[in-house]
Amino acid sequence: MPRTTDAREKAIQTAERLFRTQGYAATGLTQILEESSSPKGSFYFHFPGGKRELAMEVIAAYRATTTAAFRALAARAAGDPDKFVRALANAVAEEMSHSGWVTGCVAQNLAQELAPGDGEIADALAALFNEWVDIIAATISAPGKTKAARSRATALVAALEGARTLARAQRSAAPFDAVISQFRDETAADRRA
Amino acid sequence: MPRTTDAREKAIQTAERLFRTQGYAATGLTQILEESSSPKGSFYFHFPGGKRELAMEVIAAYRATTTAAFRALAARAAGDPDKFVRALANAVAEEMSHSGWVTGCVAQNLAQELAPGDGEIADALAALFNEWVDIIAATISAPGKTKAARSRATALVAALEGARTLARAQRSAAPFDAVISQFRDETAADRRA
Repeated sequence: MPRTTDAREKAIQTAERLFRTQGYAATGLTQILEESSSPKGSFYFHFPGGKRELAMEVIAAYRATTTAAFRALAARAAGDPDKFVRALANAVAEEMSHSGWVTGCVAQNLAQELAPGDGEIADALAALFNEWVDIIAATISAPGKTKAARSRATALVAALEGARTLARAQRSAAPFDAVISQFRDETAADRRA
Repeated sequence: MPRTTDAREKAIQTAERLFRTQGYAATGLTQILEESSSPKGSFYFHFPGGKRELAMEVIAAYRATTTAAFRALAARAAGDPDKFVRALANAVAEEMSHSGWVTGCVAQNLAQELAPGDGEIADALAALFNEWVDIIAATISAPGKTKAARSRATALVAALEGARTLARAQRSAAPFDAVISQFRDETAADRRA
């Protein structure tokens, strides 16, 4: 039934867009139904748990999209950690700038609003962040330095999430440039060691 | 009129606590009035602009508290950048851990929810983040390296804000340890240069 699948996908995409731009609490179910042109009955058929269940699906969809994008950037950087960090930070900065600094990270917004109180959401987000760290660590790791790479990858994910926060307030990509600079110095120092 | 001032302060403190733990959109005016024991009439006497005006006051109060705390940590670190970064990151991690990972940064939550759409809020938050960067840069700066220190301070503020996001999902201080490690390596490399 392609139409059913379409309606389901459209609701997830609409919720993702609204959670990213205005957050979870500020997004009412009415707005999701309106902007995805979903009749209420069909929505509850797909998502009996309502907005909260939709949030779980949004996390799964966002995890699939972002990890695919990270892997593609890693492949293009072809073993050059500096190039990868720069490409990743610039991709986030460009998406934000292009949207007038409005488009956030759905994982960050849901973590800020729903974790740690909602344990299932918190677990899904922790698993998503963990997969990001795995991909980044594998890309920036020097031979025999796996543990240090995981720590650095965690710090990089944190720095990119926080750069989003600063960029929203400053309406500028400067925080991302600072992150690139910080992590470039570090990887260069590691290669010298 | 001490009682009037008390009522005003109590509303600001209550709003700060609720914005930090549950965010702006999820906090209704009714809850602020109830938890600060404010009669509605007296609340609107102090804050004719309602919740939005209260948010501006919360930002001003949070800026005063945090910059004083940062300066105190800087004074205690007495020119040792590693010690300062460690003390700062551990202070944030301990506050979060102590609250069951619920207490966030009010500047981050308001930036995620209200910036960039609300220009006045965004400006107030950008000024707050800028003062944090000034204090940190002055503390970690090596002689003659002011510009590099501002960039590193910006990356550190971003990393600490993002570590909060990861810590909420993971319910663990590990992201703060990763940030300490990342910025320790960097400052050590700088001192060797």
